[in-house]
Amino acid sequence: MSEESQEITAAILVIGDEILSGRTKDKNIGAIADVLTEIGVDLREVRIVPDVEAEIVAAVNALRARYTYLFTSGGIGPTHDDITADSVARAFGVGIDVDERARAMLLERHRPEDLNAARLRMARIPHGADLIANPISKAPGFHIGNVYVMAGVPQIMNAMLDAIRPTLTANAPVISETIEAGAIPEGNFASDLSAIAARHGNVSIGSYPSMTPEGFRNRIVVRGRDADAVEAARAAITAMLDGLRPANQR
Amino acid sequence: MSEESQEITAAILVIGDEILSGRTKDKNIGAIADVLTEIGVDLREVRIVPDVEAEIVAAVNALRARYTYLFTSGGIGPTHDDITADSVARAFGVGIDVDERARAMLLERHRPEDLNAARLRMARIPHGADLIANPISKAPGFHIGNVYVMAGVPQIMNAMLDAIRPTLTANAPVISETIEAGAIPEGNFASDLSAIAARHGNVSIGSYPSMTPEGFRNRIVVRGRDADAVEAARAAITAMLDGLRPANQR
Repeated sequence: MSEESQEITAAILVIGDEILSGRTKDKNIGAIADVLTEIGVDLREVRIVPDVEAEIVAAVNALRARYTYLFTSGGIGPTHDDITADSVARAFGVGIDVDERARAMLLERHRPEDLNAARLRMARIPHGADLIANPISKAPGFHIGNVYVMAGVPQIMNAMLDAIRPTLTANAPVISETIEAGAIPEGNFASDLSAIAARHGNVSIGSYPSMTPEGFRNRIVVRGRDADAVEAARAAITAMLDGLRPANQR
Repeated sequence: MSEESQEITAAILVIGDEILSGRTKDKNIGAIADVLTEIGVDLREVRIVPDVEAEIVAAVNALRARYTYLFTSGGIGPTHDDITADSVARAFGVGIDVDERARAMLLERHRPEDLNAARLRMARIPHGADLIANPISKAPGFHIGNVYVMAGVPQIMNAMLDAIRPTLTANAPVISETIEAGAIPEGNFASDLSAIAARHGNVSIGSYPSMTPEGFRNRIVVRGRDADAVEAARAAITAMLDGLRPANQR
Protein backbone atom coordinates (compact mmCIF):
# COMPACT_ATOMS: atom_id res chain seq x y z
CA MET A 1 0.00 0.00 0.00
CA SER A 2 3.03 2.23 -0.07
CA GLU A 3 2.56 3.44 -3.64
CA GLU A 4 -0.71 5.18 -2.91
CA SER A 5 -0.79 7.06 -6.20
CA GLN A 6 -0.95 3.84 -8.21
CA GLU A 7 -3.87 2.35 -6.32
CA ILE A 8 -7.11 1.75 -8.16
CA THR A 9 -9.77 2.95 -5.75
CA ALA A 10 -13.53 3.21 -5.64
CA ALA A 11 -16.49 4.65 -3.79
CA ILE A 12 -20.14 3.68 -3.73
CA LEU A 13 -23.03 6.14 -3.57
CA VAL A 14 -26.42 4.68 -2.69
CA ILE A 15 -29.29 7.03 -3.50
CA GLY A 16 -32.69 6.65 -1.91
CA ASP A 17 -34.98 7.81 0.89
CA GLU A 18 -36.15 4.21 1.37
CA ILE A 19 -32.71 3.15 2.61
CA LEU A 20 -32.43 6.07 5.03
CA SER A 21 -35.91 5.40 6.45
CA GLY A 22 -34.98 1.78 7.08
CA ARG A 23 -37.90 0.56 4.96
CA THR A 24 -35.52 -1.08 2.50
CA LYS A 25 -32.37 -2.77 3.80
CA ASP A 26 -29.51 -2.17 1.39
CA LYS A 27 -28.01 -5.22 -0.26
CA ASN A 28 -26.01 -3.47 -2.96
CA ILE A 29 -23.11 -2.17 -0.88
CA GLY A 30 -22.03 -5.66 0.16
CA ALA A 31 -22.52 -7.05 -3.34
CA ILE A 32 -20.42 -4.31 -4.98
CA ALA A 33 -17.80 -4.60 -2.22
CA ASP A 34 -17.47 -8.32 -2.86
CA VAL A 35 -16.94 -7.83 -6.60
CA LEU A 36 -14.41 -5.03 -6.10
CA THR A 37 -12.44 -7.15 -3.65
CA GLU A 38 -12.49 -10.09 -6.05
CA ILE A 39 -11.06 -8.06 -8.90
CA GLY A 40 -8.65 -6.01 -6.79
CA VAL A 41 -10.20 -2.55 -6.62
CA ASP A 42 -9.91 -0.86 -3.21
CA LEU A 43 -13.30 0.32 -1.99
CA ARG A 44 -12.48 3.35 0.17
CA GLU A 45 -15.76 5.02 0.98
CA VAL A 46 -19.53 4.57 0.84
CA ARG A 47 -22.22 7.21 1.17
CA ILE A 48 -25.98 6.96 1.30
CA VAL A 49 -27.93 10.12 0.44
CA PRO A 50 -31.63 10.94 -0.01
CA ASP A 51 -33.51 11.66 -3.23
CA VAL A 52 -32.46 15.32 -3.14
CA GLU A 53 -30.66 16.72 -6.17
CA ALA A 54 -28.25 18.99 -4.29
CA GLU A 55 -27.18 16.10 -2.05
CA ILE A 56 -26.63 13.76 -4.97
CA VAL A 57 -24.68 16.37 -6.96
CA ALA A 58 -22.44 17.18 -4.00
CA ALA A 59 -21.73 13.52 -3.24
CA VAL A 60 -21.07 12.61 -6.88
CA ASN A 61 -18.63 15.47 -7.28
CA ALA A 62 -16.83 14.79 -3.99
CA LEU A 63 -16.43 11.08 -4.67
CA ARG A 64 -15.65 11.11 -8.39
CA ALA A 65 -12.85 13.59 -7.79
CA ARG A 66 -11.28 11.51 -5.09
CA TYR A 67 -11.44 7.91 -6.31
CA THR A 68 -10.71 6.03 -9.51
CA TYR A 69 -14.29 4.82 -9.83
CA LEU A 70 -17.65 5.81 -8.41
CA PHE A 71 -20.53 3.34 -8.52
CA THR A 72 -24.05 4.58 -7.80
CA SER A 73 -27.17 2.56 -7.11
CA GLY A 74 -30.78 3.71 -7.13
CA GLY A 75 -32.99 6.41 -8.56
CA ILE A 76 -33.10 5.57 -12.28
CA GLY A 77 -36.72 4.41 -12.59
CA PRO A 78 -39.70 6.17 -14.18
CA THR A 79 -41.22 7.91 -11.15
CA HIS A 80 -40.85 11.50 -9.95
CA ASP A 81 -38.48 10.48 -7.14
CA ASP A 82 -36.01 8.98 -9.64
CA ILE A 83 -33.67 11.92 -10.13
CA THR A 84 -30.25 10.28 -10.34
CA ALA A 85 -29.70 10.75 -14.08
CA ASP A 86 -30.58 14.44 -13.95
CA SER A 87 -28.43 14.91 -10.86
CA VAL A 88 -25.41 13.21 -12.45
CA ALA A 89 -25.82 15.37 -15.56
CA ARG A 90 -25.81 18.42 -13.34
CA ALA A 91 -22.76 17.17 -11.44
CA PHE A 92 -20.88 16.89 -14.73
CA GLY A 93 -22.31 20.13 -16.11
CA VAL A 94 -23.69 18.42 -19.22
CA GLY A 95 -27.12 18.31 -20.79
CA ILE A 96 -29.52 15.40 -20.60
CA ASP A 97 -32.08 14.15 -23.08
CA VAL A 98 -33.83 11.07 -24.31
CA ASP A 99 -31.09 8.89 -25.79
CA GLU A 100 -32.05 7.00 -28.93
CA ARG A 101 -29.98 3.96 -27.95
CA ALA A 102 -31.79 3.84 -24.62
CA ARG A 103 -35.19 4.32 -26.27
CA ALA A 104 -34.40 1.35 -28.53
CA MET A 105 -33.62 -0.75 -25.46
CA LEU A 106 -36.94 0.19 -23.84
CA LEU A 107 -38.72 -0.80 -27.07
CA GLU A 108 -37.39 -4.32 -26.59
CA ARG A 109 -39.76 -4.54 -23.61
CA HIS A 110 -42.52 -2.04 -24.25
CA ARG A 111 -44.79 -1.49 -27.22
CA PRO A 112 -44.32 1.94 -28.81
CA GLU A 113 -47.78 3.03 -27.62
CA ASP A 114 -46.79 2.14 -24.04
CA LEU A 115 -43.63 4.24 -24.14
CA ASN A 116 -45.25 7.15 -22.35
CA ALA A 117 -43.53 10.21 -20.92
CA ALA A 118 -42.82 8.48 -17.61
CA ARG A 119 -41.16 5.46 -19.23
CA LEU A 120 -39.19 7.75 -21.51
CA ARG A 121 -37.68 9.27 -18.38
CA MET A 122 -35.72 6.01 -18.15
CA ALA A 123 -34.17 6.81 -21.53
CA ARG A 124 -32.93 10.21 -20.36
CA ILE A 125 -29.16 9.88 -20.39
CA PRO A 126 -26.56 12.61 -19.81
CA HIS A 127 -24.78 13.76 -22.95
CA GLY A 128 -21.55 11.88 -23.50
CA ALA A 129 -22.49 8.86 -21.40
CA ASP A 130 -22.27 5.24 -22.51
CA LEU A 131 -25.05 2.84 -21.66
CA ILE A 132 -24.94 -0.14 -19.31
CA ALA A 133 -27.22 -2.91 -20.51
CA ASN A 134 -30.06 -4.15 -18.31
CA PRO A 135 -30.92 -7.71 -19.34
CA ILE A 136 -33.81 -7.86 -16.88
CA SER A 137 -36.06 -4.87 -17.43
CA LYS A 138 -34.16 -3.21 -20.31
CA ALA A 139 -33.98 0.34 -18.86
CA PRO A 140 -30.24 0.95 -19.01
CA GLY A 141 -27.74 2.34 -16.57
CA PHE A 142 -24.91 4.49 -17.88
CA HIS A 143 -21.39 5.54 -17.26
CA ILE A 144 -19.94 8.95 -17.74
CA GLY A 145 -16.34 9.73 -16.93
CA ASN A 146 -15.46 7.51 -13.98
CA VAL A 147 -19.02 7.28 -12.68
CA TYR A 148 -21.15 4.15 -13.17
CA VAL A 149 -24.86 4.67 -12.60
CA MET A 150 -26.80 1.51 -11.79
CA ALA A 151 -30.28 0.49 -10.70
CA GLY A 152 -31.33 0.05 -7.08
CA VAL A 153 -33.20 -3.25 -7.48
CA PRO A 154 -30.51 -5.74 -6.45
CA GLN A 155 -31.09 -8.23 -9.25
CA ILE A 156 -30.74 -5.50 -11.88
CA MET A 157 -27.79 -3.87 -10.10
CA ASN A 158 -25.97 -7.20 -10.05
CA ALA A 159 -26.62 -7.77 -13.76
CA MET A 160 -25.27 -4.30 -14.56
CA LEU A 161 -22.23 -4.92 -12.38
CA ASP A 162 -21.55 -8.16 -14.25
CA ALA A 163 -21.71 -6.19 -17.49
CA ILE A 164 -19.18 -3.55 -16.48
CA ARG A 165 -16.87 -5.77 -14.45
CA PRO A 166 -14.68 -6.84 -17.40
CA THR A 167 -14.12 -3.20 -18.34
CA LEU A 168 -12.69 -2.10 -15.01
CA THR A 169 -8.99 -1.61 -14.46
CA ALA A 170 -7.88 -3.31 -11.29
CA ASN A 171 -4.89 -3.71 -9.06
CA ALA A 172 -3.39 -7.07 -8.36
CA PRO A 173 -6.13 -8.78 -6.37
CA VAL A 174 -5.95 -8.58 -2.62
CA ILE A 175 -5.10 -11.86 -0.96
CA SER A 176 -7.00 -12.42 2.27
CA GLU A 177 -6.20 -15.00 4.93
CA THR A 178 -8.56 -15.60 7.83
CA ILE A 179 -7.17 -17.04 11.04
CA GLU A 180 -9.67 -18.41 13.55
CA ALA A 181 -8.81 -17.27 17.05
CA GLY A 182 -11.89 -19.07 18.33
CA ALA A 183 -12.73 -18.26 21.92
CA ILE A 184 -9.40 -16.63 22.76
CA PRO A 185 -10.47 -13.16 23.94
CA GLU A 186 -9.27 -10.23 21.82
CA GLY A 187 -7.79 -8.66 24.93
CA ASN A 188 -5.46 -11.64 25.34
CA PHE A 189 -3.82 -11.25 21.94
CA ALA A 190 -4.29 -7.57 21.15
CA SER A 191 -0.83 -6.45 22.29
CA ASP A 192 0.96 -9.25 20.45
CA LEU A 193 -1.14 -8.63 17.36
CA SER A 194 -0.29 -4.95 17.43
CA ALA A 195 3.41 -5.83 17.52
CA ILE A 196 2.98 -8.21 14.59
CA ALA A 197 1.09 -5.52 12.66
CA ALA A 198 3.93 -3.08 13.27
CA ARG A 199 6.49 -5.59 11.93
CA HIS A 200 4.37 -6.46 8.87
CA GLY A 201 3.58 -3.03 7.49
CA ASN A 202 3.00 -4.30 3.95
CA VAL A 203 -0.22 -6.07 4.94
CA SER A 204 -3.30 -4.91 6.80
CA ILE A 205 -4.38 -6.92 9.83
CA GLY A 206 -7.82 -6.72 11.39
CA SER A 207 -9.43 -8.45 14.35
CA TYR A 208 -13.16 -9.15 14.17
CA PRO A 209 -15.23 -10.35 17.11
CA SER A 210 -18.67 -11.79 16.64
CA MET A 211 -21.24 -13.00 19.12
CA THR A 212 -22.33 -16.59 18.77
CA PRO A 213 -24.68 -18.67 20.93
CA GLU A 214 -21.51 -20.02 22.58
CA GLY A 215 -20.13 -16.55 23.35
CA PHE A 216 -17.68 -14.31 21.52
CA ARG A 217 -15.57 -15.76 18.75
CA ASN A 218 -12.73 -13.88 17.12
CA ARG A 219 -11.25 -13.94 13.66
CA ILE A 220 -8.10 -12.25 12.48
CA VAL A 221 -7.85 -11.29 8.83
CA VAL A 222 -4.61 -10.51 6.98
CA ARG A 223 -4.96 -8.70 3.65
CA GLY A 224 -2.36 -7.68 1.13
CA ARG A 225 -1.26 -7.96 -2.47
CA ASP A 226 2.08 -9.71 -1.86
CA ALA A 227 1.46 -13.42 -1.23
CA ASP A 228 4.73 -13.89 0.64
CA ALA A 229 4.00 -10.96 2.94
CA VAL A 230 0.49 -12.24 3.68
CA GLU A 231 1.87 -15.71 4.42
CA ALA A 232 4.59 -14.35 6.72
CA ALA A 233 2.05 -12.38 8.74
CA ARG A 234 -0.36 -15.33 8.82
CA ALA A 235 2.38 -17.61 10.15
CA ALA A 236 3.38 -15.12 12.83
CA ILE A 237 -0.22 -14.72 13.98
CA THR A 238 -0.86 -18.46 14.01
CA ALA A 239 2.27 -19.05 16.10
CA MET A 240 1.28 -16.25 18.47
CA LEU A 241 -2.24 -17.67 18.94
CA ASP A 242 -0.90 -21.19 19.44
CA GLY A 243 1.16 -19.89 22.33
CA LEU A 244 -2.03 -18.57 23.95
CA ARG A 245 -4.09 -21.75 23.58
CA PRO A 246 -4.17 -24.39 26.28
CA ALA A 247 -1.72 -27.15 25.30
CA ASN A 248 -4.49 -29.62 24.46
CA GLN A 249 -6.07 -27.22 21.93
CA ARG A 250 -2.96 -26.46 19.90
CA MET B 1 -40.88 19.38 5.84
CA SER B 2 -41.15 23.09 5.14
CA GLU B 3 -39.66 24.22 8.45
CA GLU B 4 -36.27 22.75 7.72
CA SER B 5 -34.50 24.57 10.56
CA GLN B 6 -36.59 22.82 13.20
CA GLU B 7 -35.93 19.32 11.94
CA ILE B 8 -34.09 16.89 14.18
CA THR B 9 -31.69 15.16 11.83
CA ALA B 10 -29.03 12.47 12.02
CA ALA B 11 -26.18 10.82 10.18
CA ILE B 12 -24.53 7.43 10.64
CA LEU B 13 -20.80 6.78 10.27
CA VAL B 14 -19.77 3.13 10.00
CA ILE B 15 -16.06 2.61 10.58
CA GLY B 16 -14.25 -0.48 9.41
CA ASP B 17 -12.14 -2.02 6.66
CA GLU B 18 -14.13 -5.24 7.00
CA ILE B 19 -17.30 -3.59 5.69
CA LEU B 20 -15.49 -2.02 2.73
CA SER B 21 -13.85 -5.32 1.79
CA GLY B 22 -17.25 -7.04 1.81
CA ARG B 23 -16.05 -9.59 4.38
CA THR B 24 -18.62 -8.35 6.87
CA LYS B 25 -22.06 -7.30 5.67
CA ASP B 26 -23.26 -4.29 7.63
CA LYS B 27 -26.40 -4.75 9.69
CA ASN B 28 -26.15 -1.62 11.81
CA ILE B 29 -27.26 0.96 9.25
CA GLY B 30 -30.67 -0.63 8.83
CA ALA B 31 -31.08 -1.16 12.58
CA ILE B 32 -30.25 2.44 13.45
CA ALA B 33 -32.43 3.68 10.56
CA ASP B 34 -35.40 1.72 11.90
CA VAL B 35 -35.03 3.16 15.40
CA LEU B 36 -34.62 6.72 14.13
CA THR B 37 -37.73 6.38 11.99
CA GLU B 38 -39.69 4.97 14.93
CA ILE B 39 -38.83 7.89 17.16
CA GLY B 40 -39.07 10.56 14.49
CA VAL B 41 -35.46 11.54 13.79
CA ASP B 42 -34.68 12.16 10.11
CA LEU B 43 -31.67 10.11 8.98
CA ARG B 44 -30.14 12.22 6.21
CA GLU B 45 -26.79 10.66 5.38
CA VAL B 46 -24.67 7.57 5.95
CA ARG B 47 -20.96 7.13 5.34
CA ILE B 48 -18.70 4.11 5.62
CA VAL B 49 -14.96 4.81 6.00
CA PRO B 50 -11.90 2.64 6.62
CA ASP B 51 -9.83 2.30 9.81
CA VAL B 52 -7.79 5.38 8.91
CA GLU B 53 -7.63 8.21 11.41
CA ALA B 54 -7.66 11.07 8.93
CA GLU B 55 -10.73 9.62 7.21
CA ILE B 56 -12.59 9.14 10.48
CA VAL B 57 -11.72 12.63 11.72
CA ALA B 58 -12.84 14.24 8.47
CA ALA B 59 -16.12 12.33 8.39
CA VAL B 60 -16.91 12.97 12.07
CA ASN B 61 -16.33 16.68 11.67
CA ALA B 62 -18.29 16.95 8.42
CA LEU B 63 -21.28 15.06 9.79
CA ARG B 64 -21.45 16.40 13.34
CA ALA B 65 -21.46 19.95 12.02
CA ARG B 66 -24.29 19.27 9.64
CA TYR B 67 -26.80 17.14 11.55
CA THR B 68 -28.40 17.15 14.99
CA TYR B 69 -26.94 13.75 15.84
CA LEU B 70 -24.13 11.56 14.57
CA PHE B 71 -24.10 7.86 15.42
CA THR B 72 -20.93 5.86 14.79
CA SER B 73 -20.48 2.11 14.79
CA GLY B 74 -17.24 0.13 14.92
CA GLY B 75 -13.63 0.43 16.00
CA ILE B 76 -13.88 0.56 19.79
CA GLY B 77 -12.36 -2.82 20.66
CA PRO B 78 -8.95 -3.65 22.14
CA THR B 79 -6.91 -4.28 18.97
CA HIS B 80 -4.56 -1.98 17.08
CA ASP B 81 -7.12 -1.39 14.31
CA ASP B 82 -9.64 0.00 16.82
CA ILE B 83 -8.93 3.70 16.50
CA THR B 84 -12.36 5.28 16.72
CA ALA B 85 -12.03 6.73 20.25
CA ASP B 86 -8.70 8.37 19.46
CA SER B 87 -10.03 9.66 16.16
CA VAL B 88 -13.13 11.18 17.77
CA ALA B 89 -10.95 12.85 20.43
CA ARG B 90 -8.86 14.33 17.65
CA ALA B 91 -11.95 15.47 15.77
CA PHE B 92 -13.10 17.35 18.87
CA GLY B 93 -9.59 18.58 19.72
CA VAL B 94 -9.71 17.08 23.21
CA GLY B 95 -7.41 14.73 25.08
CA ILE B 96 -8.06 11.05 25.66
CA ASP B 97 -7.08 8.83 28.57
CA VAL B 98 -8.17 5.81 30.54
CA ASP B 99 -11.45 6.81 32.15
CA GLU B 100 -11.98 5.51 35.69
CA ARG B 101 -15.70 4.96 35.14
CA ALA B 102 -14.92 2.88 32.08
CA ARG B 103 -12.19 0.97 33.91
CA ALA B 104 -14.73 0.12 36.62
CA MET B 105 -17.09 -1.22 33.94
CA LEU B 106 -14.38 -3.44 32.50
CA LEU B 107 -13.66 -4.76 35.98
CA GLU B 108 -17.23 -6.08 36.08
CA ARG B 109 -16.13 -8.59 33.44
CA HIS B 110 -12.38 -8.96 33.82
CA ARG B 111 -10.22 -9.73 36.85
CA PRO B 112 -7.80 -6.92 37.68
CA GLU B 113 -4.82 -9.07 36.63
CA ASP B 114 -6.47 -9.59 33.20
CA LEU B 115 -6.93 -5.87 32.60
CA ASN B 116 -3.85 -5.61 30.42
CA ALA B 117 -2.80 -2.68 28.28
CA ALA B 118 -4.85 -3.88 25.32
CA ARG B 119 -8.07 -4.22 27.33
CA LEU B 120 -7.44 -0.84 28.93
CA ARG B 121 -7.56 0.63 25.42
CA MET B 122 -11.31 0.00 25.67
CA ALA B 123 -11.42 2.36 28.68
CA ARG B 124 -9.77 5.19 26.75
CA ILE B 125 -12.48 7.82 26.49
CA PRO B 126 -12.16 11.38 25.15
CA HIS B 127 -12.17 14.04 27.84
CA GLY B 128 -15.63 15.39 28.48
CA ALA B 129 -17.49 12.39 27.10
CA ASP B 130 -20.26 10.50 28.87
CA LEU B 131 -20.34 6.73 28.75
CA ILE B 132 -22.87 4.48 27.04
CA ALA B 133 -23.37 1.26 28.96
CA ASN B 134 -22.64 -2.08 27.30
CA PRO B 135 -24.66 -4.78 29.08
CA ILE B 136 -23.13 -7.54 26.97
CA SER B 137 -19.35 -7.23 27.13
CA LYS B 138 -19.09 -4.19 29.43
CA ALA B 139 -16.65 -2.12 27.33
CA PRO B 140 -18.62 1.12 27.02
CA GLY B 141 -19.40 3.38 24.13
CA PHE B 142 -19.53 7.11 24.73
CA HIS B 143 -21.09 10.31 23.60
CA ILE B 144 -19.43 13.66 23.28
CA GLY B 145 -21.26 16.69 21.99
CA ASN B 146 -23.78 15.39 19.50
CA VAL B 147 -21.73 12.29 18.58
CA TYR B 148 -22.67 8.81 19.86
CA VAL B 149 -19.90 6.24 19.54
CA MET B 150 -21.09 2.64 19.56
CA ALA B 151 -19.68 -0.83 18.99
CA GLY B 152 -19.64 -2.60 15.65
CA VAL B 153 -20.88 -6.01 16.84
CA PRO B 154 -24.61 -5.74 16.07
CA GLN B 155 -25.85 -7.20 19.35
CA ILE B 156 -23.79 -4.71 21.35
CA MET B 157 -24.64 -1.82 19.03
CA ASN B 158 -28.35 -2.56 19.47
CA ALA B 159 -28.01 -2.68 23.26
CA MET B 160 -26.22 0.69 23.24
CA LEU B 161 -28.87 2.14 20.96
CA ASP B 162 -31.58 0.98 23.35
CA ALA B 163 -29.69 2.74 26.16
CA ILE B 164 -29.45 6.11 24.40
CA ARG B 165 -32.82 6.05 22.65
CA PRO B 166 -34.80 7.61 25.55
CA THR B 167 -32.31 10.49 25.71
CA LEU B 168 -32.73 11.60 22.10
CA THR B 169 -34.82 14.59 21.15
CA ALA B 170 -37.12 13.74 18.30
CA ASN B 171 -39.57 15.30 15.92
CA ALA B 172 -43.14 14.16 15.76
CA PRO B 173 -42.81 10.64 14.40
CA VAL B 174 -43.11 10.17 10.68
CA ILE B 175 -46.29 8.42 9.64
CA SER B 176 -45.78 6.02 6.78
CA GLU B 177 -48.48 4.47 4.61
CA THR B 178 -47.67 1.75 2.11
CA ILE B 179 -49.96 1.25 -0.87
CA GLU B 180 -49.58 -1.96 -2.83
CA ALA B 181 -49.59 -1.29 -6.55
CA GLY B 182 -49.05 -4.98 -7.18
CA ALA B 183 -48.23 -5.82 -10.76
CA ILE B 184 -49.24 -2.45 -12.20
CA PRO B 185 -46.04 -1.31 -13.93
CA GLU B 186 -44.43 1.83 -12.55
CA GLY B 187 -44.47 3.31 -16.03
CA ASN B 188 -48.28 3.13 -16.07
CA PHE B 189 -48.75 5.27 -12.98
CA ALA B 190 -45.61 7.39 -12.87
CA SER B 191 -47.12 10.48 -14.52
CA ASP B 192 -50.23 10.44 -12.35
CA LEU B 193 -48.12 9.83 -9.25
CA SER B 194 -45.91 12.77 -10.11
CA ALA B 195 -48.99 15.00 -10.37
CA ILE B 196 -50.24 13.75 -7.00
CA ALA B 197 -46.82 14.39 -5.46
CA ALA B 198 -46.88 17.94 -6.81
CA ARG B 199 -50.32 18.55 -5.25
CA HIS B 200 -49.31 17.03 -1.89
CA GLY B 201 -46.08 18.85 -1.14
CA ASN B 202 -46.31 18.30 2.62
CA VAL B 203 -45.66 14.57 2.31
CA SER B 204 -42.95 12.61 0.53
CA ILE B 205 -44.04 9.95 -1.93
CA GLY B 206 -41.77 7.17 -3.17
CA SER B 207 -42.30 4.30 -5.58
CA TYR B 208 -40.37 1.08 -4.93
CA PRO B 209 -40.19 -1.77 -7.39
CA SER B 210 -38.98 -5.18 -6.34
CA MET B 211 -38.43 -8.33 -8.31
CA THR B 212 -40.40 -11.34 -7.19
CA PRO B 213 -40.64 -14.85 -8.67
CA GLU B 214 -43.87 -13.63 -10.31
CA GLY B 215 -42.25 -10.56 -11.84
CA PHE B 216 -41.98 -6.96 -10.72
CA ARG B 217 -44.19 -5.76 -7.90
CA ASN B 218 -44.50 -2.11 -6.93
CA ARG B 219 -45.20 -0.37 -3.67
CA ILE B 220 -45.87 3.30 -3.14
CA VAL B 221 -44.98 4.80 0.22
CA VAL B 222 -46.33 8.09 1.57
CA ARG B 223 -44.44 9.62 4.50
CA GLY B 224 -45.11 12.70 6.54
CA ARG B 225 -45.71 14.07 10.02
CA ASP B 226 -49.25 15.35 9.44
CA ALA B 227 -51.70 12.44 9.63
CA ASP B 228 -54.37 14.24 7.59
CA ALA B 229 -51.90 15.10 4.86
CA VAL B 230 -50.66 11.50 4.68
CA GLU B 231 -54.22 10.21 4.51
CA ALA B 232 -55.18 12.67 1.78
CA ALA B 233 -52.23 11.58 -0.37
CA ARG B 234 -52.90 7.91 0.34
CA ALA B 235 -56.54 8.29 -0.74
CA ALA B 236 -55.53 10.08 -3.94
CA ILE B 237 -53.01 7.37 -4.83
CA THR B 238 -55.42 4.54 -4.07
CA ALA B 239 -58.09 6.13 -6.27
CA MET B 240 -55.55 6.67 -9.05
CA LEU B 241 -54.37 3.04 -8.92
CA ASP B 242 -57.95 1.73 -8.85
CA GLY B 243 -58.55 3.54 -12.09
CA LEU B 244 -55.65 1.64 -13.67
CA ARG B 245 -56.65 -1.84 -12.50
CA PRO B 246 -58.85 -4.08 -14.61
CA ALA B 247 -62.43 -3.76 -13.35
CA ASN B 248 -62.41 -7.24 -11.81
CA GLN B 249 -59.41 -6.43 -9.61
CA ARG B 250 -60.68 -3.23 -8.06
